[in-house]
Amino acid sequence: MSRWEPDARGRLEKAALELYADRGFDRTTVAEIARRAGLTERTFFRHYADKREVLFHGQSALTDLVVGTLTDAPAGLAPIDAVVGALEAADGFFGERRDGARLRQGVISAHAELRERELIKLAHLAAAMTDALHVRGVPDPTAGLAAEAGIAVFRSAFERWLADDADRDFAQHVRESLQALRAVTAGS
Amino acid sequence: MSRWEPDARGRLEKAALELYADRGFDRTTVAEIARRAGLTERTFFRHYADKREVLFHGQSALTDLVVGTLTDAPAGLAPIDAVVGALEAADGFFGERRDGARLRQGVISAHAELRERELIKLAHLAAAMTDALHVRGVPDPTAGLAAEAGIAVFRSAFERWLADDADRDFAQHVRESLQALRAVTAGS
Repeated sequence: MSRWEPDARGRLEKAALELYADRGFDRTTVAEIARRAGLTERTFFRHYADKREVLFHGQSALTDLVVGTLTDAPAGLAPIDAVVGALEAADGFFGERRDGARLRQGVISAHAELRERELIKLAHLAAAMTDALHVRGVPDPTAGLAAEAGIAVFRSAFERWLADDADRDFAQHVRESLQALRAVTAGS
Repeated sequence: MSRWEPDARGRLEKAALELYADRGFDRTTVAEIARRAGLTERTFFRHYADKREVLFHGQSALTDLVVGTLTDAPAGLAPIDAVVGALEAADGFFGERRDGARLRQGVISAHAELRERELIKLAHLAAAMTDALHVRGVPDPTAGLAAEAGIAVFRSAFERWLADDADRDFAQHVRESLQALRAVTAGS
């Protein structure tokens, strides 16, 4: 059998998401995912450590993208603007993936263990952004607060982007969520 | 043996924290905790499901206190002020417990699994505050953003309170952290 498998990763991810949504995450096996993708189990394991990683591989790539953008942001930007600018860059990552993202979120929402895994990944993103701000010379507690404010913006923007039938892009939701957070923290 | 065991819960917690700090969480057994507290294993299990719960029982009590205070806050308070006022009420909870809290945090920081458990408990607090704000008539996304801004304030305040040798109280750190968050989100 040839090892040339164009977009094996993408085909496996699509097959996995469809199976998780159809019959549930717990009842889906790696063998079934590989079969539906027209690939072998061995190929699956060349790309993913297990069936849970199919759901979270993208989140690691997203963290790398956001943290890289934050690190390269122009000096002198206010920390919150550097953070939010980096989150806007996720637009290129989400781009055309809204349908897959909706499917994925439905699977995660239905499983406490997967929801917890997602929380932990977001906490890693917050910690990585805090570190990147430290490298930019931002002191504590500003660095941690800017990173956590960024996560609040990200979560709110992501939820609204998923639900948005008007197809506005992710970056626009990020900017609107930042405005909403500013209004909230300004308070009475 | 008498079942009258004054403050068995507190004695077990103190014994557990000391053992976790001395010899590590993984290497401490329930039998050792009970022995050090002068109690039986059976008594331990009347109070805690397992040795991990000793570390997190307080966090559940804290969530109840904060959410109860938020629910009872005067109508008309801005959401962020209601949230932060509820977090200030945790002052009565933390009060004299700084030494125990420091010991506990050292144990948790040393274990990835315990750090993850703590993150999940904080996410539950955020979700519970969001629900309480909904009941107060606060719509989305304001409710979620106010709750998550509150968690950012709580984390920052708690860290500073733990490190504070000047013995300023937790509520004061909460107010200062809110000011810091406001400065951060206001940005450039």
